[in-house]
Amino acid sequence: MNGASPLLTPELARLLDSNKLATVATIGSDGLPRQSTVYYARRENRIFISTLGDRVKARDIERQGWASLCVRGSEPPYPSATFSGTAVVRSTEIGEPTALVMQRIADADEPPEAQGDDALAAVGRVLIEIVVERVAALSHL
Amino acid sequence: MNGASPLLTPELARLLDSNKLATVATIGSDGLPRQSTVYYARRENRIFISTLGDRVKARDIERQGWASLCVRGSEPPYPSATFSGTAVVRSTEIGEPTALVMQRIADADEPPEAQGDDALAAVGRVLIEIVVERVAALSHL
Repeated sequence: MNGASPLLTPELARLLDSNKLATVATIGSDGLPRQSTVYYARRENRIFISTLGDRVKARDIERQGWASLCVRGSEPPYPSATFSGTAVVRSTEIGEPTALVMQRIADADEPPEAQGDDALAAVGRVLIEIVVERVAALSHL
Repeated sequence: MNGASPLLTPELARLLDSNKLATVATIGSDGLPRQSTVYYARRENRIFISTLGDRVKARDIERQGWASLCVRGSEPPYPSATFSGTAVVRSTEIGEPTALVMQRIADADEPPEAQGDDALAAVGRVLIEIVVERVAALSHL
């Protein structure tokens, strides 16, 4: 169930799963790249990021439908790769994937109990979901 | 001489100088964001990256003249920020800034002796220079 898609080799899946912070990039309304640091979680070939719906990266994704995530290991030789693909901003059925991200933020053994969509909406939380369609810029992998 | 520009507060300059790996973003020829992991060095409000002239990020910058660099500290709470601005690919008078980057890669007290432009050209090395004009996505700073 949590297996890698053919695009995600075991090594790439391990890079994604053994790190939890990465850099997400979108295209801003000015056509220039926009980057920020995010926590993420992975299931199969989908990457989840929990953010606030009014953040510019969410608006960029709503407008453009694409994002990339550059992941780098924290120990020498600092393996890294960039995962990119179709991206959406979701506000329904986001309780479980949001809990997966929260688990990683908290470094917990188990995800916290999933919140309902209404509770997450009340605090402005949305879920960015990137379907990995390309892997590039592999380094030390 | 190594002071911060008004845009780079002491805290932002410290973030740049106390880290050496970051994620650079450019816009690919398909209009989508492109990211990769790079070593960098800073002098005043300029960020230097040593790369090979045939790398896609160098071509992206030659075409678009803009890049961003997202820097994240390696310790909790993982402070981060994205620095962006006009970017050029240089091949002349690049010996000294290239040596600054090499010093950081090697974790050396002093930069290695600067190579001449001809020697660097012989191995395909160019220098990406980003002039920081915007700072965004500050987190834990």
